[in-house]
Amino acid sequence: MATTDVSDDEHDQLLADVFAERCLSRPTLEHVTGRWGVLAVAALLEGTMRFNALRRRVSGVSEKMLAQTLQALERDGFVHREAQPTIPPKVEYSLTPLGHEVAVKLFDLIKLVEGSLPAVIAAQARYDEAKAAN
Amino acid sequence: MATTDVSDDEHDQLLADVFAERCLSRPTLEHVTGRWGVLAVAALLEGTMRFNALRRRVSGVSEKMLAQTLQALERDGFVHREAQPTIPPKVEYSLTPLGHEVAVKLFDLIKLVEGSLPAVIAAQARYDEAKAAN
Repeated sequence: MATTDVSDDEHDQLLADVFAERCLSRPTLEHVTGRWGVLAVAALLEGTMRFNALRRRVSGVSEKMLAQTLQALERDGFVHREAQPTIPPKVEYSLTPLGHEVAVKLFDLIKLVEGSLPAVIAAQARYDEAKAAN
Repeated sequence: MATTDVSDDEHDQLLADVFAERCLSRPTLEHVTGRWGVLAVAALLEGTMRFNALRRRVSGVSEKMLAQTLQALERDGFVHREAQPTIPPKVEYSLTPLGHEVAVKLFDLIKLVEGSLPAVIAAQARYDEAKAAN
């Protein structure tokens, strides 16, 4: 388990385990599976995007939440932020190679969930009917 | 896009899209990628578990949060809840076939994130140093 209490050297010798409450892999997983993180990472799989284009793609996200989400993903090394010294400044976001690996797995999961939606809706209806009958 | 506004018949004719703000696939995705949902689903990949065993495995989760998480997953059809009429009642949770498919994809993602932790920690250190230097 890699926690904040161990030195850098020790990190490499410990196995990460998201089931361990204080393992650093847990917040990292949360950054890519969080409500907006999962959509931002998956959206960037479509290519490099400027902030506002990404915000349109991840519909429903506020400017503040998207900025926070991207900052955490950049800090973890999943997203690359490129600011060009133009006027006005042009800021583009893209996936790093590691971010791309994560995005592919998230995309797989998203496609499965989207494809399962009719089954999920049917399950919800059965569940609600059973509850109502009790 | 499948939303709450369309009839059941229409659902099947529409393509689910998590990028669409009101698509029902979005809350469904959130149930399996949420902070506790992802860990509960991945834990159940290890086999059928009683509530307290699952709570120990998903360390850090409160009884209330785990109960809410499992209820949402059961309603979506990802988790099966089996209550045996013993005294005291024995309640066991397991993955449905659909839940198992989702769990395998989540497990893939978890393994990637856990394995990437040294790279993530290094990226975080670089990011923090660059910020401190500005």
